[in-house]
Amino acid sequence: MKDELKILAARTAVDELVARGRIRSGMKLGLGTGSTAMPAVRRIGELIADGTLSGICAVATSFQTTIACENLGIPVYSMNSRQIGGSLDLAIDGADEISPEKHLIKGGGAALLLEKIVAYNSAEFVVVADGSKAVSSLGTKFALPVEIIPEARISVAAALKKLGADAVLREGVRKAGPVVTDNGNLILDCLWASPVQADEMEYEINRITGVVENGFFTRILPSVWIAREDGTIDRR
Amino acid sequence: MKDELKILAARTAVDELVARGRIRSGMKLGLGTGSTAMPAVRRIGELIADGTLSGICAVATSFQTTIACENLGIPVYSMNSRQIGGSLDLAIDGADEISPEKHLIKGGGAALLLEKIVAYNSAEFVVVADGSKAVSSLGTKFALPVEIIPEARISVAAALKKLGADAVLREGVRKAGPVVTDNGNLILDCLWASPVQADEMEYEINRITGVVENGFFTRILPSVWIAREDGTIDRR
Repeated sequence: MKDELKILAARTAVDELVARGRIRSGMKLGLGTGSTAMPAVRRIGELIADGTLSGICAVATSFQTTIACENLGIPVYSMNSRQIGGSLDLAIDGADEISPEKHLIKGGGAALLLEKIVAYNSAEFVVVADGSKAVSSLGTKFALPVEIIPEARISVAAALKKLGADAVLREGVRKAGPVVTDNGNLILDCLWASPVQADEMEYEINRITGVVENGFFTRILPSVWIAREDGTIDRR
Repeated sequence: MKDELKILAARTAVDELVARGRIRSGMKLGLGTGSTAMPAVRRIGELIADGTLSGICAVATSFQTTIACENLGIPVYSMNSRQIGGSLDLAIDGADEISPEKHLIKGGGAALLLEKIVAYNSAEFVVVADGSKAVSSLGTKFALPVEIIPEARISVAAALKKLGADAVLREGVRKAGPVVTDNGNLILDCLWASPVQADEMEYEINRITGVVENGFFTRILPSVWIAREDGTIDRR
């Protein structure tokens, strides 16, 4: 059921964005990671296959998405390539939590760094989600991922504690060792006892030496498509 | 001549710090990288060898310094080890430029990330230098190193340009490829047309997504020993 809602949100968003000309042929698109972003990637692949879209240049936010694009025939470029030039027209991605102000937590899949590089360098940012991701506040339920330099693990955890967070090193399945990100860093998952002001906290956490990036996304406000359990779409 | 001044500054600083009890047996010390930090490391090694200092736990800011410590018999720990616990009593290091406000540029040797993790987690920070490092302003002569995630190279360079900087990718000897840091990142060397306010710029640059850290050190003010060409020591 949840999977159907994810597909509904993703396909509805892509189809409406194409209908309104916000996704057009020739555009540079950022393509996200995870179970809700993937149906959006597949829908874009269908629209390329049927000739609705042409000349799309994509940047994928993870290895998983890169593989999917390759299988779908969507050409994938580096952010640094001449075709992309460091900026995108539109990025579409999922989110782990969405607040009423449209602040996000992302990074449950440990791809937050590239997801943020892509989102923050896009002219428009689109988020697709099922209704369970819409929450009243951030910081107390879904842990905020903070990507850190391994050598600063203890000092960053101490600095996060001063910001009120309980920080836990993310470990892999069967606790065989820590999760290592695509860039060779570690993840501290942070929870607070009471809700946090995400925009201020995004900035405070990034000031800590040894923090590479964190999973609060507050500096580009997305257009959001949320699929509710009754099959309606909540557009924000 | 310059080498003698570096040795003079380094040995004078260590000896005075020991005489005043600011470097003591049992302390946790951060040991820096480069041609001026190295004589300080050697002097500490001598004071351990002759029994003046005992029970020192060191954190080295580079592979080069780690090797030197091993050869000198100085025990080296990770910042995360139980012996260190993420914080140090005193760190001693060189600098590439020192402003009148004691703001620094560091990172000419590409070790700025670990140098900053060490300095910013030390109760006291000591800088040793020869007189050529004392400058009237920062940003226009010695390029500021900015450590970046490779995938964000173009977008970060564009963001740095908006901050007024001309950013050039650091390349290795014989231009055989980019310099890759100990953490697998790249370095953009930044110059401005006119002097910059280092404390504000340190913060603004770190806000750019894809920047890991930059070489402005303004948030811990060091005690500085500078050896002048006439053989006098300028203590700040």
